Amino acid sequence: MSNLNKMNVDLVIEARWVIPVVPRNRLLEHAAVVIHQGKIVEVAAIETISANYQASKTVRLDEHVLIPGLINLHTHVGMTMMRGLADDLPLMQWLQQHIWPAEQQIVSERFVRDSALLGCAEMLAGGITCFNDMYFYPQATAEAALQAGMRAQLGLVVLEFPTNYANSADDYIEKGLNHRDEWRGQSLLSASFAPHAPYTVADATFEKIVTYAEQLGLGIHTHLHETQDEIEQSLKQYGLTPIERLSQLGVLGPNLTAAHGVHMKNEEIEQLQAHGCSLAHCVSSNLKLASGMAPIQKMLNAGVNVGLGTDGAASNNRQDMFTEMRTAALVAKGLSGDVASIPAWQALEMATINGAKALGLEGQIGSIETGKLADLTAVKLSDIEASPCFDSLSHLVYVAGREHVSHVWVEGDLRFERSDMQAGVYANIEPNELKEIVLKWQPKLNQHKV
Amino acid sequence: MSNLNKMNVDLVIEARWVIPVVPRNRLLEHAAVVIHQGKIVEVAAIETISANYQASKTVRLDEHVLIPGLINLHTHVGMTMMRGLADDLPLMQWLQQHIWPAEQQIVSERFVRDSALLGCAEMLAGGITCFNDMYFYPQATAEAALQAGMRAQLGLVVLEFPTNYANSADDYIEKGLNHRDEWRGQSLLSASFAPHAPYTVADATFEKIVTYAEQLGLGIHTHLHETQDEIEQSLKQYGLTPIERLSQLGVLGPNLTAAHGVHMKNEEIEQLQAHGCSLAHCVSSNLKLASGMAPIQKMLNAGVNVGLGTDGAASNNRQDMFTEMRTAALVAKGLSGDVASIPAWQALEMATINGAKALGLEGQIGSIETGKLADLTAVKLSDIEASPCFDSLSHLVYVAGREHVSHVWVEGDLRFERSDMQAGVYANIEPNELKEIVLKWQPKLNQHKV
Repeated sequence: MSNLNKMNVDLVIEARWVIPVVPRNRLLEHAAVVIHQGKIVEVAAIETISANYQASKTVRLDEHVLIPGLINLHTHVGMTMMRGLADDLPLMQWLQQHIWPAEQQIVSERFVRDSALLGCAEMLAGGITCFNDMYFYPQATAEAALQAGMRAQLGLVVLEFPTNYANSADDYIEKGLNHRDEWRGQSLLSASFAPHAPYTVADATFEKIVTYAEQLGLGIHTHLHETQDEIEQSLKQYGLTPIERLSQLGVLGPNLTAAHGVHMKNEEIEQLQAHGCSLAHCVSSNLKLASGMAPIQKMLNAGVNVGLGTDGAASNNRQDMFTEMRTAALVAKGLSGDVASIPAWQALEMATINGAKALGLEGQIGSIETGKLADLTAVKLSDIEASPCFDSLSHLVYVAGREHVSHVWVEGDLRFERSDMQAGVYANIEPNELKEIVLKWQPKLNQHKV
Repeated sequence: MSNLNKMNVDLVIEARWVIPVVPRNRLLEHAAVVIHQGKIVEVAAIETISANYQASKTVRLDEHVLIPGLINLHTHVGMTMMRGLADDLPLMQWLQQHIWPAEQQIVSERFVRDSALLGCAEMLAGGITCFNDMYFYPQATAEAALQAGMRAQLGLVVLEFPTNYANSADDYIEKGLNHRDEWRGQSLLSASFAPHAPYTVADATFEKIVTYAEQLGLGIHTHLHETQDEIEQSLKQYGLTPIERLSQLGVLGPNLTAAHGVHMKNEEIEQLQAHGCSLAHCVSSNLKLASGMAPIQKMLNAGVNVGLGTDGAASNNRQDMFTEMRTAALVAKGLSGDVASIPAWQALEMATINGAKALGLEGQIGSIETGKLADLTAVKLSDIEASPCFDSLSHLVYVAGREHVSHVWVEGDLRFERSDMQAGVYANIEPNELKEIVLKWQPKLNQHKV
């Protein structure tokens, strides 16, 4: 076929492996993704694509796996400058003696913009293309996300008590809605209401938020059942668990993304499922703050939509979805005693399509499918520590780190690129010797692989 | 002072931070380590050192923390080529259908040499200077360790059943001792007996090993209480738990390093402590194989010496002690509900001096002290994802990854060096902008840090 008959497109990415996530558990080898005007046009074998398309730019990824951009379903990116400010401390001492005083003294629109830009740079370089945020001055986080070229759902945070940002629950709501109006034209940005937590937000405010969210078609993002203390305090104050209380207030619904859910009884899990709520599992943060281990396998079995979140840098010092995938998969197995808990394909689903569903964006992102936006991440799987590679999907979760991310596209625009990391230099080992070792033995082992 | 009065030495390393590990919880800033003929001569402030020593070579690490080389207390480095061969499978299916058939067909002296070299390259680049191994053909692993320039304690593996390597328990013992004779002149290498596990080694063989180990002054390295199955099987077969059985056979003692110890009753922990045994905690492997979560905080409280191990690449696809430190610290907190469980300083102790103690090498390695061998690892803490840095010790455990390792010395010889990783390129973020953000806000936050 002559070039005249080929369709002109912006970009073709040819990869050794493509994992589209939808349909489930599919792996394409030597496949190409066609991108035009920010959208995915076709996914097929490299030869098919090169026969049919003429691309302005072609990127060849011979040793890489291409996946949907990772979605961080719960963070506070404006806190990135507080990374490691106070570790190994009990939650209340951490909050009351370090985080809250620091916030009171320092947090400003400028601080949040700067801190969020640092966080966006970290996340983008780690293959994250979209994040679900909750923090003061959401307009400042919006500015950082736009500069980085990342997709964000910005939580319009609401609390009862005054901060530098706002004075009252109504003031938080009003400020949030005004800021949302400012960025409504931006395709990368969306908004949700973010009542901070049942223990910091009153019934009347929750009711207002539910009404507004319904009227405006917005999601709701909140912390829920993070600690046992929070549940006991709620039982004392309201005679209800936080989930029971939110249920009565009409907060539970398919537009709710609840972060944490560490302490959940079976009937509470069923309630989340029945209302179509999503959960943002923040395994590293829950472990680090000693909150506990969320019964994620039970939630998945019950049919709850579960995504993964890093939480903010003050409680999880890595804004790194690779670590979250791996830790979530490992801890689920250790907790259940079942090695099949959260296999690699499911960890990747949690980090991509499940996050998209929670944000109401499953029509646009979360998988590599024709018609979706080209939010894509390439991961190099040929470094020494990733050799040999029998299965690119299991390598993605159990072997790869964020440092193996080589390219990140958002709506088809290249937003981050890492040239081949300079391989380290060994005194007595030649990289070529190692390459030959892998080439020699891997074919013999292939028959034994899963 | 003129140069004439200065002592001539091989190497001075000047670092932004030095964490010597011994004494506990000490952090030196702008400190230098003097190295001559493979040994640490002095550790002091940079000015003091430069006034007193004339070095053939000086290495300046302005943005780095210098720590003792990491000690991997349990691995099977000859299995590195089996990385990711079979994931997310139940233990017995994994062993019987994949690992054992592959071993039977492929494992040879050459395979182990090659596979171990790949593993040594991975470990060295991740800051590991010493590993405690157990696998067939220990002479092949010895060869790989010597080429890489790493320190190793090689387990002379003993099983009852025949393999490509040996025919009978006595044959394993004889072969092992002969191989040990071949490398006895090598300062980097030492040996231990490695009866594989209570469920693969008979009483008579354990008794022989105890006798030989005592005569030759060797350690014993075995798998112990890794799964609940193993304990139940032992109760059926012997009427004793594996620990009770080993106790009766005289295997428990200060020269024993037991890997795993996932399922341990309080009285069993007390028994390990009373006998001065060491434990190799392999948290990632235990989670990944769904074996469970070892009660490490209880062991530490009881005074058991606990080090960290990666286990082999077939059951933990990363031979990465940074991931082990972080995961051990996090899981301990999640399990105990106590945020003070395994704080950063203790995770680092487990990965260094505790490993040295287990190997009987605490006089030579495991800390940065005058007179010890210069096994050292430098970690760069200035990349975007490590910014800001309020506390280099907490950063080492909660933020850093093995990709931040910049230099690795073994007995004062540089064995690995990674040039500045090329910072990735962002479409719209200037690295300098991020640097300025950190410089602007970190001083304001410093007062709030722990």
